[in-house]
Amino acid sequence: MLSKQEYEAAQKQTIKFLERANIVLIEEEKKAIEVADFGLGELEQTGLEVVVYANTSRCCAKELVLFPRQTCPEHLHPDVAGEEGKEETFRCRWGEVYLYVPGEPAPDPKAKPPQRRKEHYTVWHEIVLKPGQQYTLSPITKHWFQAGDQGAIVSEFSTISRDEFDIFTDPDIKRATEVGKQTI
Amino acid sequence: MLSKQEYEAAQKQTIKFLERANIVLIEEEKKAIEVADFGLGELEQTGLEVVVYANTSRCCAKELVLFPRQTCPEHLHPDVAGEEGKEETFRCRWGEVYLYVPGEPAPDPKAKPPQRRKEHYTVWHEIVLKPGQQYTLSPITKHWFQAGDQGAIVSEFSTISRDEFDIFTDPDIKRATEVGKQTI
Repeated sequence: MLSKQEYEAAQKQTIKFLERANIVLIEEEKKAIEVADFGLGELEQTGLEVVVYANTSRCCAKELVLFPRQTCPEHLHPDVAGEEGKEETFRCRWGEVYLYVPGEPAPDPKAKPPQRRKEHYTVWHEIVLKPGQQYTLSPITKHWFQAGDQGAIVSEFSTISRDEFDIFTDPDIKRATEVGKQTI
Repeated sequence: MLSKQEYEAAQKQTIKFLERANIVLIEEEKKAIEVADFGLGELEQTGLEVVVYANTSRCCAKELVLFPRQTCPEHLHPDVAGEEGKEETFRCRWGEVYLYVPGEPAPDPKAKPPQRRKEHYTVWHEIVLKPGQQYTLSPITKHWFQAGDQGAIVSEFSTISRDEFDIFTDPDIKRATEVGKQTI
């Protein structure tokens, strides 16, 4: 759970990151920034800040902000109601991000998952994304990512986003964020 | 038709615009910037510069650059092979863009289409997009757009892009650009 203060502080921090990269939001978008702590209550380590630009039945675009060394935990996007799972392209806009997918494990990975949760990180093939670099993930592919020491901004271009169906490796994770007594 | 020199000069100009807005491309993307003159040979008036980030069978993301007062001429995206036509969200990132769609015509539109081709501009409902503002177009909707005096950068988030099927109002238009003796 995050307190309202923590949630709003993370929104403000996200706005600063985006401004530094010259990415402009309108006021409504600033207020609607989603702060996801994945129910673990350790936002600095495990979390993600999200601006949803568009999410229709056919396609979706988001800006993802990661604070320094913040990790989006391992998950996949399953088929939903007979429709193929989400396909995503991650494009690094600012900072540096380390993305992990199935395949040959990195011998010396640049990211370190939160120590207590390491067992729930099972894919270790490393893709390093710097500004202008991108990677397209097929549906039903386990993945996780962590920002470098400066944080990162990543544009996500995808098919429809239905986060509530995401399957996380860590059984403690809840995708919806609780803020005070509200679930967002 | 554009000469190779004109094509490359427009690519360089596009890179300058993107750099000014802090949008980073890798070298391969810079070389692959598409300059579209729509077969009219009047690129300054009628044209569009395009960076395709991703274009899969399911979704597509592009950066569109318009030079000052450059116009992307009126067209629509039809159904193709039984699949619903392209759905597009235009998000202004830099500069200002005037988008026209069917509906109540603007009494004093901010854009002026190239004078000789005015008859081929038939939709006049005006949407002004400044940085952070966006608009989602349904499939099979006629539209055209022009940049303001400083030019514009517009992110396009969409379903699959198959430009070769686009239907233009102006019968003189050819979507593929001829560069010297090559068609791109």
